[in-house]
Amino acid sequence: MVKNYMGYREFVIEGRNAVIEAFRAGKPIDRLFIQDGTQDGPIQTIKREARKQDTMIKFVAKERLDQLSETGKHQGVIAYTAAYEYADVADILAAAHSKNEPPFIILLDNIEDPHNLGAIIRTANLAGAHGIIIPKNRAAGLTATVARTSAGALNYTPVAKVTNLGKTIEELKKEGLWFVCADMDGTTMYQLDLKGPIGLVIGSEGEGVGRLVREKCDFIASIPMKGEIDSLNASVAAGVLAYEIVRQRMQ
Amino acid sequence: MVKNYMGYREFVIEGRNAVIEAFRAGKPIDRLFIQDGTQDGPIQTIKREARKQDTMIKFVAKERLDQLSETGKHQGVIAYTAAYEYADVADILAAAHSKNEPPFIILLDNIEDPHNLGAIIRTANLAGAHGIIIPKNRAAGLTATVARTSAGALNYTPVAKVTNLGKTIEELKKEGLWFVCADMDGTTMYQLDLKGPIGLVIGSEGEGVGRLVREKCDFIASIPMKGEIDSLNASVAAGVLAYEIVRQRMQ
Repeated sequence: MVKNYMGYREFVIEGRNAVIEAFRAGKPIDRLFIQDGTQDGPIQTIKREARKQDTMIKFVAKERLDQLSETGKHQGVIAYTAAYEYADVADILAAAHSKNEPPFIILLDNIEDPHNLGAIIRTANLAGAHGIIIPKNRAAGLTATVARTSAGALNYTPVAKVTNLGKTIEELKKEGLWFVCADMDGTTMYQLDLKGPIGLVIGSEGEGVGRLVREKCDFIASIPMKGEIDSLNASVAAGVLAYEIVRQRMQ
Repeated sequence: MVKNYMGYREFVIEGRNAVIEAFRAGKPIDRLFIQDGTQDGPIQTIKREARKQDTMIKFVAKERLDQLSETGKHQGVIAYTAAYEYADVADILAAAHSKNEPPFIILLDNIEDPHNLGAIIRTANLAGAHGIIIPKNRAAGLTATVARTSAGALNYTPVAKVTNLGKTIEELKKEGLWFVCADMDGTTMYQLDLKGPIGLVIGSEGEGVGRLVREKCDFIASIPMKGEIDSLNASVAAGVLAYEIVRQRMQ
């Protein structure tokens, strides 16, 4: 029923009633697998609850569910919920405050690869970022893979999940944060002043930072690119930018 | 018989005679799967050839070979060879020379994760490194996974495979290169002069840079670490260090 890894636990919930109950109890469902073509009442209820919570739904063949099932009684639906508690944005600000440091937050605009998310949490911990903010929709949640690739950092670096990244940016601006968005057509990062209270926004590999989020940013920071290909791996780009902030703060 | 990806091709060779022939023709065999417990003459010959070439051998159950097999006639042995040609170290120096730049080479001491190797080739391309050097023994070779995670960089950035990384470092020192090794107990990277002809040595995640290679390096460079956990992901560390070199060279 439970996978254990470094204090992090992932629960598997199988069957219609169990999944509906989990939603109604407000448990954070990270991933939801529903059997392709199923249309009855309880499944419709589950889909509705999932949409309310912005849970990612994957429609899969019965064979896949049979494979995933630990009880053999999935009734066409399996949900994964993390025992890891998401932090609040306020917790992240409080962490900065208690260390007497200007806030340094990394915001991830739809990083879908759990290996990248894990590596970025790891980087955030070592670069001294006070926390990470991810959007509810589409992005990778705090799954067992993320916990593993974070190499323990998930136990120390708070991760908050928010409904609307743009709105969160607006709220954090009121707290004095500046926002810098990683993109190709911006100012070379070495020429920007990244020393103050800062939110660093990293986009997904395919699409970069979404337009609505990008428009809320104060600066666009670019990593110099000398080669023939398009872009760095998202977790490498996050590392390079996070450490430019570290460098400037050390001066 | 052939998997295609962005110009990169991986060939599968099945059966004893085919594999022996491939070795004798000097084809670069990246991975070799041998059925557990097989001891006959041809298999002994294959093992001997593999040791000569420092090819990594994996002993697996017959079922695994049946799964991997495309012909159904593996006779207890399957080999993978890359159509991608490894470069020579001289090619990498020539690339620097033709661009009129001081050489910048990334050396990987036993990076075993193909995703990390791919991401580092990608970083090398964009950071303007002239090539990558990997050791023959133990390290990940240029497999299809590496090609894919390099996002095309493998088509532009030469990768050389050498028998002895320490000896290669000695030879490159005669060409005027300085070697900086990434490790935890060194000088903070911002305080080192990384502008000249340079070889950046990155170690494996578990063990770091090996002692013999480390002793050949002129400097130990450290990335500042502020968090609770031990180390960055290897490809993130390589990215952060490579871009410190970029930053210093741009000044």
